[in-house]
Amino acid sequence: MYLCAIFQPKPLAQLMKIATVIGIDIGGTSTKLALIDRDGKILARSAFNTHERQGGANFVDSICKATETLIHTHQNSHQVLGIGIGTPACDEKNGAISGAANLPFRETVPVRRLVEEQINLPVRLVKDANASALGEGQFGGAKGMQNFALLTLGTGLGSGLVVEGRVINGNHGLASEFGHTKVVKDGRQCGCGQKGCLETYVSATGLKRTVMELLAQRNDASALRSKSFDRLSAKDLTEAAEAGDSIAREAYRVTGEMLGYKIVDLIVMHDPEAIFLAGGLALAGDWLLQPTREAQKHYTLDMFKGRTEIYLSNLGSEDAALLGAASLIWNLPTL
Amino acid sequence: MYLCAIFQPKPLAQLMKIATVIGIDIGGTSTKLALIDRDGKILARSAFNTHERQGGANFVDSICKATETLIHTHQNSHQVLGIGIGTPACDEKNGAISGAANLPFRETVPVRRLVEEQINLPVRLVKDANASALGEGQFGGAKGMQNFALLTLGTGLGSGLVVEGRVINGNHGLASEFGHTKVVKDGRQCGCGQKGCLETYVSATGLKRTVMELLAQRNDASALRSKSFDRLSAKDLTEAAEAGDSIAREAYRVTGEMLGYKIVDLIVMHDPEAIFLAGGLALAGDWLLQPTREAQKHYTLDMFKGRTEIYLSNLGSEDAALLGAASLIWNLPTL
Repeated sequence: MYLCAIFQPKPLAQLMKIATVIGIDIGGTSTKLALIDRDGKILARSAFNTHERQGGANFVDSICKATETLIHTHQNSHQVLGIGIGTPACDEKNGAISGAANLPFRETVPVRRLVEEQINLPVRLVKDANASALGEGQFGGAKGMQNFALLTLGTGLGSGLVVEGRVINGNHGLASEFGHTKVVKDGRQCGCGQKGCLETYVSATGLKRTVMELLAQRNDASALRSKSFDRLSAKDLTEAAEAGDSIAREAYRVTGEMLGYKIVDLIVMHDPEAIFLAGGLALAGDWLLQPTREAQKHYTLDMFKGRTEIYLSNLGSEDAALLGAASLIWNLPTL
Repeated sequence: MYLCAIFQPKPLAQLMKIATVIGIDIGGTSTKLALIDRDGKILARSAFNTHERQGGANFVDSICKATETLIHTHQNSHQVLGIGIGTPACDEKNGAISGAANLPFRETVPVRRLVEEQINLPVRLVKDANASALGEGQFGGAKGMQNFALLTLGTGLGSGLVVEGRVINGNHGLASEFGHTKVVKDGRQCGCGQKGCLETYVSATGLKRTVMELLAQRNDASALRSKSFDRLSAKDLTEAAEAGDSIAREAYRVTGEMLGYKIVDLIVMHDPEAIFLAGGLALAGDWLLQPTREAQKHYTLDMFKGRTEIYLSNLGSEDAALLGAASLIWNLPTL
């Protein structure tokens, strides 16, 4: 009887289930979820509007509902081992979100504990920029690298820095704010209250500001003169650059020049193997990459020359954070 | 007979010997040695002129001779457990010195292996700036801190960066060149071949350059007008500042302002607990520290405000590297 129980075969379906984790990327606009396998393949996706319900408890409830739906829809074929969450305003140590500027709550919400209680799976939280760096390191171009940085060029400029194999967080979990290093003394006003921060020049918004400046300074005919600041997108600018618009081309050149110049600081401080560019603005490809590389080469001192490459992230700009958040679970010592 | 041998007491002198290590600080001018106990107390010192003999083999020979003399002079009372060496142009991984600009050899010299063969004690090598950071962390104001930087303001600006308890080296052992981050685009010519590096403004030499600039721009009477660039020292400038010389005071203000402004980059990237200033220029004390702190406060964004302190190193500016090099031996897993 006892022996029988030991040798009783498990149902075939249970044996065949694919081990997966859920990666969640909380953004100011939408919160994305994905079911991800060990190789970083995204097997299923869902999303909800981050602001669909107000308050921390409601937001956690939305996360749990979306997660449960994803789990139940695939429960016959997939077993979920845990949930990794990339989020702004993240207190990684305590698994909480605190003082978020763009989320539907400002109070401190112990997301890890609340989701674990409701879903009964291990949950880990990580800063959004760090999640993207982890994703690049685990599944992208930085695979196997011990020292690299990932810069996410979107509305602002986020960054994750991997030093000797570990994402650095600093003394209060605030490290890696490359977007708030200064590139022009007393330069453009930044949302942080300071002036001349890199992200006021190098980001989708920074690029638009540069276009406005060029339209003010020059007389070149440009399709961009018919666009308002609010309606102008990085995509418009890439299209204009491709059509030969001199203002759009110069805006990308100035932006890449600023980025390459400032990347040299990052190189001499961290001596990384590579720097990866992700986010919406990175979709501009060579329009951004080429002037960035040229400026890097020009401003790098001899002993560092040729040691650090700049690449575009080869993960979809949308997916690095999802994959990185998921990697937290794959790397849990208990799995 | 066998039992007798076991219980035979050791000679009293051997039992009472104080465990020590030898710290060595290789500098462009002189190479300093010290016998150091576990508490970082310097029990004996010696030094030799770095350029007394040319070539790598001769230099290693000088190190071994000075070390042996130190060991033999104190052999009745002290037992030496190993030798820690702080040096420029250091390849820490291989224990070698390679391509040194200011040492009496340029070739790659496997110092660790050569000294170990001759002295038969464990030897470790560390970059000079990292040695100072280790010294500050082990025996100075950074004791117990997991995240801090030590800036050595001398002829140039050296820096050691401790991130989450470890000195960072980067992918090719070149990290932490804070002196070669850029502070003025296309600014002053730097010895590295680039322009506008921080050390062209913030160092003993940078301070002198600022004095020359002020003497050119202003008409203030100043004792500094009677000094040549070559004969001017940071000590002269401190004395002039104390005597009320407006050029000297302004030179320190400008230097501190540059340093504080650039320290903000270091803060937003690393979120350190503290930054320590060491080296000859740090002896200026408040003349440098006060404008540095003011600029740091002015240029720091709100979320980082009040989180990072700037201090003067409380180790003698001469001893941090010696103590840090020694700490390598105390921290060997075999001891």
